[in-house]
Amino acid sequence: MLIVGGGIIGMAAAWRVAQAGLSVTMLERDTPGAGTSRVAAGMLAPVAEVEFGEAGRRALELGLRSAAMWPAFARELETASGVSVGLLRTGTLVVARDDDDARELDRQHEFRRSLGLAVARLRASQARALEPALAPTLRLALHAPEDHSVDPRLVLAALERVCVAAGVQVRAHAPVARVQLDAGASSVEGVVLADGERVPARRVVLAAGPWSELIEGMPRSAGASVRPVKGQILRLRDPAGPGLLTRVLRFRGGYLVPREDGAYVLGATVEERGFDLAPTAGGVYELLRYAHELVPGISELHVEELAVGLRPGTPDNAPVIGPAGVDGLVWATGHYRNGILLAPLTAQLVAGVLGGDAEDRLLAACSPTRFQAAAAAAADPAAGEPAVA
Amino acid sequence: MLIVGGGIIGMAAAWRVAQAGLSVTMLERDTPGAGTSRVAAGMLAPVAEVEFGEAGRRALELGLRSAAMWPAFARELETASGVSVGLLRTGTLVVARDDDDARELDRQHEFRRSLGLAVARLRASQARALEPALAPTLRLALHAPEDHSVDPRLVLAALERVCVAAGVQVRAHAPVARVQLDAGASSVEGVVLADGERVPARRVVLAAGPWSELIEGMPRSAGASVRPVKGQILRLRDPAGPGLLTRVLRFRGGYLVPREDGAYVLGATVEERGFDLAPTAGGVYELLRYAHELVPGISELHVEELAVGLRPGTPDNAPVIGPAGVDGLVWATGHYRNGILLAPLTAQLVAGVLGGDAEDRLLAACSPTRFQAAAAAAADPAAGEPAVA
Repeated sequence: MLIVGGGIIGMAAAWRVAQAGLSVTMLERDTPGAGTSRVAAGMLAPVAEVEFGEAGRRALELGLRSAAMWPAFARELETASGVSVGLLRTGTLVVARDDDDARELDRQHEFRRSLGLAVARLRASQARALEPALAPTLRLALHAPEDHSVDPRLVLAALERVCVAAGVQVRAHAPVARVQLDAGASSVEGVVLADGERVPARRVVLAAGPWSELIEGMPRSAGASVRPVKGQILRLRDPAGPGLLTRVLRFRGGYLVPREDGAYVLGATVEERGFDLAPTAGGVYELLRYAHELVPGISELHVEELAVGLRPGTPDNAPVIGPAGVDGLVWATGHYRNGILLAPLTAQLVAGVLGGDAEDRLLAACSPTRFQAAAAAAADPAAGEPAVA
Repeated sequence: MLIVGGGIIGMAAAWRVAQAGLSVTMLERDTPGAGTSRVAAGMLAPVAEVEFGEAGRRALELGLRSAAMWPAFARELETASGVSVGLLRTGTLVVARDDDDARELDRQHEFRRSLGLAVARLRASQARALEPALAPTLRLALHAPEDHSVDPRLVLAALERVCVAAGVQVRAHAPVARVQLDAGASSVEGVVLADGERVPARRVVLAAGPWSELIEGMPRSAGASVRPVKGQILRLRDPAGPGLLTRVLRFRGGYLVPREDGAYVLGATVEERGFDLAPTAGGVYELLRYAHELVPGISELHVEELAVGLRPGTPDNAPVIGPAGVDGLVWATGHYRNGILLAPLTAQLVAGVLGGDAEDRLLAACSPTRFQAAAAAAADPAAGEPAVA
């Protein structure tokens, strides 16, 4: 079987599927781990990230499930690879810079309490007792003690090792141009690479992130539902070592994620710009402005890198995981801002689908066909969603 | 003879000295043009740059002289090298963001008028008629129509070619550890490289910028008068091409220099940090903040590079050019923020010194021994500066 895409989703899925005894070839357009996953900050933050509405609740369920899997996933990965993946169980502070932020934070606090989530409301002085680098102008904070972080670059390095050790054939610089279906478009026959090479396979997992939309020959039921959402980040390092900030910090317009060694990821813009990978003066400025206001001490941090990632967004920004009406074709992308968080669960779901043993309820929430169902319902109000789904 | 340093000063001097018929070897610690010159914005701005006081007037005289040499220097360099050096005769706008800036600008305007310099006071509307990208919040501007710019990276590429063509032996990765003097410390005998190799020479030109202070064995009269002054810059590019800004823009805390092709240099911090070459969150933020206030349109520009240069500062921030009390030893550094501007004049002065035909008055203003004279006068008030000089 083929897995298209060597980011965190593709590699985690390849590992799980190979562990289940299948023969796996992974096709990556660049080198494994060179894309969006490498730019991600690595927040495992289902509580801080939860959004209002039905899609938000579905994402929360997926996020909580996958967050709970992370400690064991990290341990297994570290043992199998010999690479530490930098899982830091520090908790997250969501902070308010001004009165508007504080009102919104109170609303968010109520919402999370109503969902039964572990989150505490802290006065500014309490937040500053936890993180003394926070500016005195801080208004309010929420503390999500179970929202942690991991270092995606270490995870990617570990995954590449365990994939190879598990027998996954890793093909770098092998961009997939199209999916090959049979004459009736009812089952998959393989893929065609950009250079024309045909790679036959009866099962194909699409984990190509935003680049999925560039792959031709997709069945209409799932095609073109993923788009790139640009995120700019800065990678900073404190020449004085770790300690300026211990917890993940989130705020309107961004976040600051500390690593164990004095490195920080400051992110991220959210921009609809297609496949644009250029950092911009405006993006960098906004990120630094917010962060300076909240943590004036970042001024002395070295800027090691400006990077841009393209998140795979979907119409409702929940992932597309599972079969899509064509025998042998399985989606595993659209993770938007939550690809690192959702990797263990996605890998398990993909392995389950291929092994005939997946959780139907979770898969239903991630169905690649849900947008077509919604579009059909909108076009024909008489056809209710349940009937179409 | 030896020239220590392959920046714009060392290369320009090597070219002129080789043209005069001397055999020249250039020793560069890295590769030619890899240091401070490569980070410089390339403003040829003696009028905008002039400072109050005696040192300021001396620097102005040097600057005006060298600025007047630039068009012919650029033409000669372009003809000899076949490389265009990007000399743009656009003039410079010095702008005020607020009332404090505006008061200071009026003071600067009066000062420049008193010196007979070509500079016009513009109302905000007049400045915005010239440069429509300027923010409406602009308060006042000065227009220096004769302050132009050049692209230092193109100049460096051209200089390397003409040096080689003129017979200069260019030795890259040849850091000089010490200057070798004779037993009486009265004349130079050569230099010793970091790997211990001795390179004999009866004449040595020190053009190593801030790294000059790391070279041991200097005569006390001139040693340790140069220090690194850190400057951070951003190199930006407008994906829409040139046109956002035509003229060089200067403001409190920075400048924005347009190139012909839609590229911009946004600089520069002025920091006393020793040999620290790391861009910082605070440095990048301040530059972007000022520039955004004045030219909101820079928001869309791509950030191509963060770079740090180490200017060679001196106690009075005027250069040290000429002999320093040891036969055969000639200084050519300490150009601080004006190395690109002063390169043609410095090269001419160095060639003059070596050929026995330099302008004494200009050299006196740049004497490497002036700080010792000032220190002696301060230590012994009875000894007036004229007697010592």
